Amino acid sequence: MKIVAAKKILKMNDQLAAENHAALEAAGVFALNVVGSPGAGKTTLLEALFAQLKGRLRPGVIEGDIAGSIDAERMETIGVPVVQINTDGACHLDAHMVAAAGKELDLREIDLLAIENVGNLVCTSGFDLGEHLRIVVLSTSEGDDKAVKYPAIFQGSQALVITKIDLLPYLNFDAQRITADVKRLAPEAAVFQVSAVRGDGIAEVADWLAEKCGRRAR
Amino acid sequence: MKIVAAKKILKMNDQLAAENHAALEAAGVFALNVVGSPGAGKTTLLEALFAQLKGRLRPGVIEGDIAGSIDAERMETIGVPVVQINTDGACHLDAHMVAAAGKELDLREIDLLAIENVGNLVCTSGFDLGEHLRIVVLSTSEGDDKAVKYPAIFQGSQALVITKIDLLPYLNFDAQRITADVKRLAPEAAVFQVSAVRGDGIAEVADWLAEKCGRRAR
Repeated sequence: MKIVAAKKILKMNDQLAAENHAALEAAGVFALNVVGSPGAGKTTLLEALFAQLKGRLRPGVIEGDIAGSIDAERMETIGVPVVQINTDGACHLDAHMVAAAGKELDLREIDLLAIENVGNLVCTSGFDLGEHLRIVVLSTSEGDDKAVKYPAIFQGSQALVITKIDLLPYLNFDAQRITADVKRLAPEAAVFQVSAVRGDGIAEVADWLAEKCGRRAR
Repeated sequence: MKIVAAKKILKMNDQLAAENHAALEAAGVFALNVVGSPGAGKTTLLEALFAQLKGRLRPGVIEGDIAGSIDAERMETIGVPVVQINTDGACHLDAHMVAAAGKELDLREIDLLAIENVGNLVCTSGFDLGEHLRIVVLSTSEGDDKAVKYPAIFQGSQALVITKIDLLPYLNFDAQRITADVKRLAPEAAVFQVSAVRGDGIAEVADWLAEKCGRRAR
């Protein structure tokens, strides 16, 4: 009989994440773990960033979803190399899934690999995928109290991208409040406010990513 | 050494959920399991429903959150008996947590017990709490593709409440699409469209709840 403790699984994940990271480094690929609630606007943000980064960085995507391939189809439409992972019920990606998906991509053609995690503000926080940066995407319509309710995901992330700021006139959302809460949890985190449909703030996020990506390449 | 398999834990949960259900029945309490993404508008919906049901049903609430007590404080403000569960990282409530929280409420003073689950469209789907009805709350700003991406939570629910319809003019959200997708997964599910801030549709959900609650009491 084999017994595998949860702690050991997490340790195995960390080892595999380190291997993923080394493989990405060797291939010269900079990887993002993009997390957020269902419908926070992760895919729409990536579409806008890739358009902004055209000619600067060659994108690739790993899409994580419980079921379906809607997001991967959107990426194919804009000509971005993409692999869809269906987790079949699992509430987050892990390093093993990403390793398998990565084999389906030609990493020589990719500078910036966005790994779009399952829409989940809780379970995604515990699993390193081997990425260089983790980015939380939070939409204005989700409310400004989310850092208090879901601290772990913000604590381990390098940036907060507040999406859908075009909806601000119709919502009771205090960007200063969530920014202060996130800065308490992650003092080094960059905070951006964007509207992917209107284009606000996309250039700032794109420049920040290009700079992070370039600094590592030096 | 004790080994507890995941299947056995789920079975234990189901047994405890059945005990919760029997205890609720004995006390004449009708219980809702309210699930949805972070920021879908679960608490705001409950506030609006309780105002609408004033004089008809006496409400009580169990609030489930990873951390904090923001939602419980909101319920206290409107004078509703409430117990806050902090799951301390766990991504969903289970029957055991609800049993413990229920002991902190005087069930003789409650007709309708709303159990507001952790904001999570994935993990909450696997755990029966002993409720009479499970209701998925989905905001228009989350997008109309959620039933395809997160089928399990819709499949096991008795109603879909689409919130924030006041934002429809500013979004690309097709209510017919999500309704058709949900009806495929759960043909018997009731579907409502509401704006809790504006009041649209709240009476319909309240009447439906009162009717479900009354029918069981007969």
